[in-house]
Amino acid sequence: MEKQAQIGVAGLAVMGENLVLNMADKGFSVAVYNRTSAKVDAFLAGRGRGKSISGHQTVGSFVEALQRPRRIMLMLKAGPPVDSFIEQLLEYLDEGDIVIDGGNSHYLDTIRRDRELRERGLRFIGTGVSGGEEGALHGPSIMPGGERSAWPLVEPIFTAIAARAGDNEPCCAWMGGDGAGHFVKMVHNGIEYGDMQLIGESYQIMRQLLGLGCDQMQAIFADWNKADLSSYLIEITADILGYRDEDGVPVVDTILDAAGQKGTGKWTVVSALEQGITLSLISESVFARCISARVDDRRRAADILRGPELPFSGDRQQLVAALEQALYCAKIISYAQGFALLQNASQEYGWQLDFASIASIWRGGCIIRSVFLDHIADAYRQEAELENLLFAPYFSDRINKAQADLRTVVGIAAMHGVPVPCLSAALAYFDSLRSVRLPANLLQAQRDYFGAHTYERVDRPRGEFFHTDWTGSGGATTSTAYSR
Amino acid sequence: MEKQAQIGVAGLAVMGENLVLNMADKGFSVAVYNRTSAKVDAFLAGRGRGKSISGHQTVGSFVEALQRPRRIMLMLKAGPPVDSFIEQLLEYLDEGDIVIDGGNSHYLDTIRRDRELRERGLRFIGTGVSGGEEGALHGPSIMPGGERSAWPLVEPIFTAIAARAGDNEPCCAWMGGDGAGHFVKMVHNGIEYGDMQLIGESYQIMRQLLGLGCDQMQAIFADWNKADLSSYLIEITADILGYRDEDGVPVVDTILDAAGQKGTGKWTVVSALEQGITLSLISESVFARCISARVDDRRRAADILRGPELPFSGDRQQLVAALEQALYCAKIISYAQGFALLQNASQEYGWQLDFASIASIWRGGCIIRSVFLDHIADAYRQEAELENLLFAPYFSDRINKAQADLRTVVGIAAMHGVPVPCLSAALAYFDSLRSVRLPANLLQAQRDYFGAHTYERVDRPRGEFFHTDWTGSGGATTSTAYSR
Repeated sequence: MEKQAQIGVAGLAVMGENLVLNMADKGFSVAVYNRTSAKVDAFLAGRGRGKSISGHQTVGSFVEALQRPRRIMLMLKAGPPVDSFIEQLLEYLDEGDIVIDGGNSHYLDTIRRDRELRERGLRFIGTGVSGGEEGALHGPSIMPGGERSAWPLVEPIFTAIAARAGDNEPCCAWMGGDGAGHFVKMVHNGIEYGDMQLIGESYQIMRQLLGLGCDQMQAIFADWNKADLSSYLIEITADILGYRDEDGVPVVDTILDAAGQKGTGKWTVVSALEQGITLSLISESVFARCISARVDDRRRAADILRGPELPFSGDRQQLVAALEQALYCAKIISYAQGFALLQNASQEYGWQLDFASIASIWRGGCIIRSVFLDHIADAYRQEAELENLLFAPYFSDRINKAQADLRTVVGIAAMHGVPVPCLSAALAYFDSLRSVRLPANLLQAQRDYFGAHTYERVDRPRGEFFHTDWTGSGGATTSTAYSR
Repeated sequence: MEKQAQIGVAGLAVMGENLVLNMADKGFSVAVYNRTSAKVDAFLAGRGRGKSISGHQTVGSFVEALQRPRRIMLMLKAGPPVDSFIEQLLEYLDEGDIVIDGGNSHYLDTIRRDRELRERGLRFIGTGVSGGEEGALHGPSIMPGGERSAWPLVEPIFTAIAARAGDNEPCCAWMGGDGAGHFVKMVHNGIEYGDMQLIGESYQIMRQLLGLGCDQMQAIFADWNKADLSSYLIEITADILGYRDEDGVPVVDTILDAAGQKGTGKWTVVSALEQGITLSLISESVFARCISARVDDRRRAADILRGPELPFSGDRQQLVAALEQALYCAKIISYAQGFALLQNASQEYGWQLDFASIASIWRGGCIIRSVFLDHIADAYRQEAELENLLFAPYFSDRINKAQADLRTVVGIAAMHGVPVPCLSAALAYFDSLRSVRLPANLLQAQRDYFGAHTYERVDRPRGEFFHTDWTGSGGATTSTAYSR
């Protein structure tokens, strides 16, 4: 290859390799580099053979192989490897060159790198790439953010390699400044945690309470996949439940119930806590993974702690039907919480996120793709400044009709000893949100009692603070207004 | 005052002033300093008049007024002010002098400061001081950690000013190295968040579902305070419910239900997430404060979102009795989660925390003081390495008897639309912990399906990882074992 390459990709782990193949298949010429250069040779001799891909043994030759302004995409392990590779790149780059981080970086690192590279006259893009190995190869959902002026130079490539949603719209759109892309990808992953745990709780109710076998549950999930819940995760759940080994044993039954996690779920919850946004459902899904991993504790607990020995005596078909509605309700609530976090972050970081666009590009390529996201995109198209997804007519209507089923399922699970942390968190959020009076008045009284933290009053404007001398003798309140 | 002072206190906000008065009342001579020196003058002319307290206008004269090795306690706003004051102190201190941070510092800052001061030949103590203004004056619970060699020099003062628990034991004990004291104080605050929200949910059920008035609820909390739930927070809740203004209106009814928070609850949950410890109840209590603060969203939601219009038709006395048991159950679970976090942190940071001692010093002075803590201290005295508080015979026995009541309350709240995020989280944790099989096997299958994350098997030793080609044609599993 003599002609210079249109884009460079550094990092040939599976995600990197697959993205390169995807780019080459769409007609782009790609230069590749990997720290262990044997990996470059193996790739070019193997899956990369005969394509518009050139391999490079040094960072210098890699950079020199690229058209200017250079587009260099890093597909590296998040964290220090990204910084150290950028450091290596610096001596070869020229003003206006574009560094794209396509790894699972924390958005605060992306904000920092965006600033650092801008100070050096370079342009940085931090982009979420969702869809796993398959997505990278055949079309991921791509969420770029960073230096806006770099986007027109990268857009044709990203648009070509991205997944397409039903209407042939590419699942790729500019998210916003500095860390916007990685933030949106992080929230995507948090929502993925929630979706998976909600499916798990539904499965647990069917297995533990109704005693259904894998075939029956496969049929139910396959059925749900034909209606409102239709989504990639429901689809693969049905597949998994139907998968048997050579001896005819469902493989899912042989798998240890100890969940792993790589950290983006935790990041999402930490970010919600820092921003003061209620993200209880995703939070419970992270904690559910943590407790599942404590297998020995659970085995000991099972011998010591007692639950009800209550067989299910209700109508089984009805419960399965209620479960479908409950799952839908909880999913609405989880996405409402996730989008509330996006909304708050957008304001806090000045990203001006387009929520309709986010929902739209999640409709294909990524793990949480679903028909459900069409309704979210519609809701934000109709009212871009919607305070809460639950206020959109489609969702309020759906949840008002289905909330009774969510109550039934949570109530039955509670009485029968089936753990449903996320379904419960969904219901508690729903009932909290629609409460004109929460018990926080008592809580504010307690804080004022022991710490003189003051409180606001229902009959006075916000921003006026009062303190009562609760332990003072006599019944007269000693409240006095003052502004903090 | 010519004689040198035994201890110095810098920072004369209310907590600092009250601690100084407490020390002086116990016979110690105290030098005080405040950045705004008018505050020093006012204090010495006012509450500090005629006591063994000397005031200083400069850091130099403040330090020189102290016996050696010097003991200097900072009662400053957490964060940069602590670092900047330590920086000012440095030029005056001599090797072996002791700097004590008594503010609400983050334990990671304390770990850093401990290291930085040790490198300069100084000794650092980071100490939690709990009990608010009243506690500081009359006896707080004190949780010191840091440089062990400094402790014998500080212990007599701290022991003298600390609260005493029922058996006259001082509520002060050495926690462990570097950040141990501030970590324990942080978890104390997290538990306080949980306790307060649990009381709030009980109140909400009585108010919203049973329609009880403040007098009736006051009587119930006063009643609960005579039995197992006896604690400072239950006691002040009864007080608050009984407090009326000049017009006879209960003050609690005039308080806006928008909770404030200062951050230690969030810190606790973030720390649990980072350590992978399920802390769902405290997490829900933090989120409950967040959602309460969104008053406008809730008002809009109340118009849009529907719940059941179901009057309570059960036995009201029975529900109140069940509520008492449910609250006790949930409290056990919250403390079990909190102590699991302490246990994990103790290992991770090498603190060798003494859990019996922690429970013991929380019995007096601090906000969560209660008779309940006696049982926790007992449990850890009997088995210091207890994996989970719920495994202690006293607690497993209590919770096995009371879990049915927790189920009843959660079920009734769900069916009647009363938000009970923390009670629900408690039940979900209990049922998760005692589950021999959680649905995480399905979750691991999903992760292996879309991301080749591999899984362990129930019929193979831990640490062997398998992958299935789920989308491969044919029914045969292609699992192969390999170690990561």
